[in-house]
Amino acid sequence: MSRHHIPQMTWQEVGERFEQGAIVLLPIGANEGHGKHLPLATDTIIAVHTCELVAERVDAVIAPVIHWGYKSQMRTGGGHHRTGNIGLTADTLSALAAEILVDLMEKGVRRVALINGHYENTWFITEACHRAIREAGLPEGELRMLSTAWWELTDDDVLKACFERPPGAIEYEHGALLETSIMLSAQPDLVHMDRLPQHEFPAFPPYDIFPPDMSWANETGVLAPVDGANAKSGAKLMTIVADRIAEAVIKELGAIRRV
Amino acid sequence: MSRHHIPQMTWQEVGERFEQGAIVLLPIGANEGHGKHLPLATDTIIAVHTCELVAERVDAVIAPVIHWGYKSQMRTGGGHHRTGNIGLTADTLSALAAEILVDLMEKGVRRVALINGHYENTWFITEACHRAIREAGLPEGELRMLSTAWWELTDDDVLKACFERPPGAIEYEHGALLETSIMLSAQPDLVHMDRLPQHEFPAFPPYDIFPPDMSWANETGVLAPVDGANAKSGAKLMTIVADRIAEAVIKELGAIRRV
Amino acid sequence: MSRHHIPQMTWQEVGERFEQGAIVLLPIGANEGHGKHLPLATDTIIAVHTCELVAERVDAVIAPVIHWGYKSQMRTGGGHHRTGNIGLTADTLSALAAEILVDLMEKGVRRVALINGHYENTWFITEACHRAIREAGLPEGELRMLSTAWWELTDDDVLKACFERPPGAIEYEHGALLETSIMLSAQPDLVHMDRLPQHEFPAFPPYDIFPPDMSWANETGVLAPVDGANAKSGAKLMTIVADRIAEAVIKELGAIRRV
Amino acid sequence: MSRHHIPQMTWQEVGERFEQGAIVLLPIGANEGHGKHLPLATDTIIAVHTCELVAERVDAVIAPVIHWGYKSQMRTGGGHHRTGNIGLTADTLSALAAEILVDLMEKGVRRVALINGHYENTWFITEACHRAIREAGLPEGELRMLSTAWWELTDDDVLKACFERPPGAIEYEHGALLETSIMLSAQPDLVHMDRLPQHEFPAFPPYDIFPPDMSWANETGVLAPVDGANAKSGAKLMTIVADRIAEAVIKELGAIRRV
Amino acid sequence: MSRHHIPQMTWQEVGERFEQGAIVLLPIGANEGHGKHLPLATDTIIAVHTCELVAERVDAVIAPVIHWGYKSQMRTGGGHHRTGNIGLTADTLSALAAEILVDLMEKGVRRVALINGHYENTWFITEACHRAIREAGLPEGELRMLSTAWWELTDDDVLKACFERPPGAIEYEHGALLETSIMLSAQPDLVHMDRLPQHEFPAFPPYDIFPPDMSWANETGVLAPVDGANAKSGAKLMTIVADRIAEAVIKELGAIRRV
Amino acid sequence: MSRHHIPQMTWQEVGERFEQGAIVLLPIGANEGHGKHLPLATDTIIAVHTCELVAERVDAVIAPVIHWGYKSQMRTGGGHHRTGNIGLTADTLSALAAEILVDLMEKGVRRVALINGHYENTWFITEACHRAIREAGLPEGELRMLSTAWWELTDDDVLKACFERPPGAIEYEHGALLETSIMLSAQPDLVHMDRLPQHEFPAFPPYDIFPPDMSWANETGVLAPVDGANAKSGAKLMTIVADRIAEAVIKELGAIRRV
Repeated sequence: MSRHHIPQMTWQEVGERFEQGAIVLLPIGANEGHGKHLPLATDTIIAVHTCELVAERVDAVIAPVIHWGYKSQMRTGGGHHRTGNIGLTADTLSALAAEILVDLMEKGVRRVALINGHYENTWFITEACHRAIREAGLPEGELRMLSTAWWELTDDDVLKACFERPPGAIEYEHGALLETSIMLSAQPDLVHMDRLPQHEFPAFPPYDIFPPDMSWANETGVLAPVDGANAKSGAKLMTIVADRIAEAVIKELGAIRRV
Repeated sequence: MSRHHIPQMTWQEVGERFEQGAIVLLPIGANEGHGKHLPLATDTIIAVHTCELVAERVDAVIAPVIHWGYKSQMRTGGGHHRTGNIGLTADTLSALAAEILVDLMEKGVRRVALINGHYENTWFITEACHRAIREAGLPEGELRMLSTAWWELTDDDVLKACFERPPGAIEYEHGALLETSIMLSAQPDLVHMDRLPQHEFPAFPPYDIFPPDMSWANETGVLAPVDGANAKSGAKLMTIVADRIAEAVIKELGAIRRV
Repeated sequence: MSRHHIPQMTWQEVGERFEQGAIVLLPIGANEGHGKHLPLATDTIIAVHTCELVAERVDAVIAPVIHWGYKSQMRTGGGHHRTGNIGLTADTLSALAAEILVDLMEKGVRRVALINGHYENTWFITEACHRAIREAGLPEGELRMLSTAWWELTDDDVLKACFERPPGAIEYEHGALLETSIMLSAQPDLVHMDRLPQHEFPAFPPYDIFPPDMSWANETGVLAPVDGANAKSGAKLMTIVADRIAEAVIKELGAIRRV
Repeated sequence: MSRHHIPQMTWQEVGERFEQGAIVLLPIGANEGHGKHLPLATDTIIAVHTCELVAERVDAVIAPVIHWGYKSQMRTGGGHHRTGNIGLTADTLSALAAEILVDLMEKGVRRVALINGHYENTWFITEACHRAIREAGLPEGELRMLSTAWWELTDDDVLKACFERPPGAIEYEHGALLETSIMLSAQPDLVHMDRLPQHEFPAFPPYDIFPPDMSWANETGVLAPVDGANAKSGAKLMTIVADRIAEAVIKELGAIRRV
Repeated sequence: MSRHHIPQMTWQEVGERFEQGAIVLLPIGANEGHGKHLPLATDTIIAVHTCELVAERVDAVIAPVIHWGYKSQMRTGGGHHRTGNIGLTADTLSALAAEILVDLMEKGVRRVALINGHYENTWFITEACHRAIREAGLPEGELRMLSTAWWELTDDDVLKACFERPPGAIEYEHGALLETSIMLSAQPDLVHMDRLPQHEFPAFPPYDIFPPDMSWANETGVLAPVDGANAKSGAKLMTIVADRIAEAVIKELGAIRRV
Repeated sequence: MSRHHIPQMTWQEVGERFEQGAIVLLPIGANEGHGKHLPLATDTIIAVHTCELVAERVDAVIAPVIHWGYKSQMRTGGGHHRTGNIGLTADTLSALAAEILVDLMEKGVRRVALINGHYENTWFITEACHRAIREAGLPEGELRMLSTAWWELTDDDVLKACFERPPGAIEYEHGALLETSIMLSAQPDLVHMDRLPQHEFPAFPPYDIFPPDMSWANETGVLAPVDGANAKSGAKLMTIVADRIAEAVIKELGAIRRV
């Protein structure tokens, strides 16, 4: 277990880390069905795991994870209807993230990296950042936040370097080759390899339907092929992702590299 | 001018159209800088133009356009700081769209297509639809909304069919080849061809910075090459887009095809 | 078409106008039934038309119109139940106007005139101004807004000067002599002179009933006599209104008179 | 003291009155400066007094008064800046009134008359009624509310019947002849007759300025002449007002006339 | 009647009191059933009475009472279902109190004591204070509020000094020995001594059930024995409470002791 | 690690548990300083630990913990100012809990036990339950929630049974004898026994001050003596607490006892 989680430290220990220049990483995940082989916390676990890898590379502490996300959408997450899915409204998700940010600022924090694990959260994190800026009322230039996600740091070259047979398209990565591999490297005890589903890439129409059209939902909620998932590829991918985020927070937020 | 705009009809005329089976198209745009050659209303004009082309193909009426959108972001719209940009918070944008939807439902409407012209709006339209469903409280299965945007209906084949030299990447289309061509076909009097900017594709880092990093903003706010923009390509593109949306609303919303 | 509409300008053009001292006019209308002879956008068209006439007289730019208003009330607008009417809640209407004002202030604007075309909006515009002041947090004395409507600038003498037979009472002016005349001068192609309704002044009781009592609603939604409506009187009335608003914005907001 | 005030009754007594057919009167006032001679609660006292007079005429109970109102405006109430003025935002005022209405409905109430004493409240009461209808979710036709104010029931004939020299204009009645006379009949111990101000009718321009222009505010906050104020005229006026409201609640809400 | 109630003063009189150093007392009560013998306003009356006693001891003015509180809970107030009970949501109650506080601060007030009479309000008053601090945006150290309630100032010694047979437990004091005695001293005309209920201390389970379990509610809503209630004990108790609050506001808020 | 955590199960596994009659436990904690010897997550860990012990006794699944709570207060939690503390506004905390409850209801859940670990949360959990009832709109009697906390199930007899020297007062239990003992039994690796603070019971005045008076805050944030803390007493206490909650959820929510 990482020694960098704010909730596991005393308040004095957090204070010392802030004095030493630690930045804050805020992981944001979801409670969302990811097939029969992955837990509902998949996006949360990956977001926290990303933060832990980054905190090994730079002086950073990890805020309590936001483990609910925006409602799962048919074309990106398999649909919100699956039992156990818990999704927030846009307003509550943004208010929650913004209040965490503002409270950190009241405690003196000025540099935060928001690490997302659930695609549907993206724009509500953007709103949370705008909201936090407005509500904190700090002098211009004093506050700086960076927002990213593991898939933002991934490209064709990265995938080729990590996987024997890289996925044809990353936009349907939901409980598929990449997330399964990452989970095998991050928390293998929660991956049921005996239940790996068989899926092809989906052929969604170029629009959304509300309320969601249930005929678009498959049996498992996984959106793309899982075949070939393995811990080694997952670990390699996350190493590259963590290296790149570490570089970014050093460059953009002035994080201090660990030696 | 299209004869299908709700605001230009009397309330009795709208009633008749509803009785004849007309569905409602809700265009959503933005007031956002699009370079020196395009007006701030570019996204709004394209959203309304799309609706007008669809209303020529199926029996549909067009609701008053939402001509403010979510704040322009550096990597997708050139940045919110440009003079004249007016952006809403996520909550007000979603509330506004949801209240329009709910009021239409109170007047008996059960089929709506939301036609977006501003990329940053996408997820707040999704929230508006979820919100409208919750607030309208209609029996399950009674309401059905479709949400899309011109770029969703566009792919490499379409671009090749329309442009001599199709753009290398569509994700940086902001005030560039495609939007300029569409505007030349939709409202040429607002396009300043004598001020066409010269831009290459940008090299944004794979993350966002809040407050936005002003060094990422170029002089014009256009994100990609404009070179080759012409009305004919724009018209051809929009014809394909409108045909496809018309097919979708016929299939999904039961819209009646005009003959 | 007026050359002063922000949405039709580029962001650089708007910036230049601000540097030259242009103030911002924010028109606020409604989507509300106005009889069989006038479009749902009547109040919106009149609000925008007023702004255009003012922008001919003083250096001003016109913000995108708010074309939804507060719900039509029985005694002032014929009732919200008419097909095609779209009304917002008080909170969303005030938030929308306030966010537009605050965003303009963030772009450097300090002088705004809010020009209302829909009576039911009046107090929610007042709230929007209070809200904008609170949210903008500008130093005292730096911001100044003026709020008015065409009927505020009208009195018995004005009506006598414009109409052969001036209306007996202005408080029931909804789709009647004055609005029909103004529309004939502002956008005659949307007025159906062949469908002019015949109405007497109503005899509403001195209270409101909620939910509205449908027995109070007449067939058309017009509240007073239309007889005698003509473009010339409408144009004359709007000339006086625009002259007076121009004087007010020069005096109160320091607007620069055009020569 | 009236025996009809809900707060002064036990919950069982209220239950009995509901069973006997009592409707609920909800008085809404303000805490707003009314010159040197009248208390800040003037509008509240008049609203409650109106309810008490109505409750003498029909079987009705009186809900706890809302004694804060919307912010005082320069042209209607002398301005919000005066010490001791306490004004709510539109949203909180409407939410407060709506929650009281919804709670009454949950206790079985279906007929409410809202009696306003502060002009600036008018449209936020309208919003509260719309909000209560939406939130209560009662079957159509089950709920019925009436909203009025003493000045709605007043006209030239009434004023002539009550006052030797009726006021020239009622729209500037703020702490002037009418309100002072009503207060002399309703709660004379709070009227300082030795401090009656001398005022002429004001000449406000036909628009509002935000933030309010302090040069529009006079020394006392009274807007019109007070001269001639007397308890007898006030009592006569309120008798007519109460008779008319009683008739209205009998006709519209089915209230039971006392014998 | 106390001469210290803001609503009964003119705005100039309030201004003078502020100049002389008066602090503001804000009473917060409820409209909640208190048995067959006490009025729904019991908590409100006690809160106001406490303020009046404090205002006799120190230079203070009393703001208009908040006479709705948070919904009555089974284990502390007998349950919200009783006819005539009117309860607010947490958000509206906190917003209401916070807006009153913020408006007082805009008028120059910097020292407020919030005097609660309804146990269920406690934490929403805490939230209101946090909210007012945030919204007022005053420089650190400039604002200071004190929040308390009569039962906070009460302990075993006090009860022994006031009552022949002090209550066994104070946490079930709802319409029982203490509140009845206080009401007998504060407003005896609203106490029905001929209807005193007979109750033992309740045996509630150590949890709450939502929606409330109606089998937990007794017939009257009183939670503990009333036997022995008398005006003299009530008066003695409130004298001690008022003395202690007066000391606290002198010490903490710099209130000026009356001589 | 408990096999009952929703986030660690697949969505199909959760569905099976629901079909078998499992109820949902929702733990609610805080991120709040608890002295030099306990982690910021103390209240969260205890809330989750309580749920895990209950889930060993009855068929129940555990929802993702809410690990932010209401702001720490001086007299109950040592104060919100301590580094690392993250607290939400009342509205966001209640909205968050209510949305989780409503989403569970949409997935078919009808029985939930809310297990609180942070005293300051109590009334905002109450509000969340009221809110969830209102928003879910389920038929009366269909939904039933139970809300409690470990200290509610504790009394003098329990403390005597568990501790050699039971604490003199439980209301100042914050990071003291009880919580330290519970943590030693629940997660000893996060307890720093070498840093146990020395504290006496505090002597807080009988009121709150806002903004908090920093002179009330001691160096560590612990409010009472820690001396004698040991894992065995903590485990015994939690066994009794879990037994009692298990009995309650069986009786009140129809939970199925494990055999």
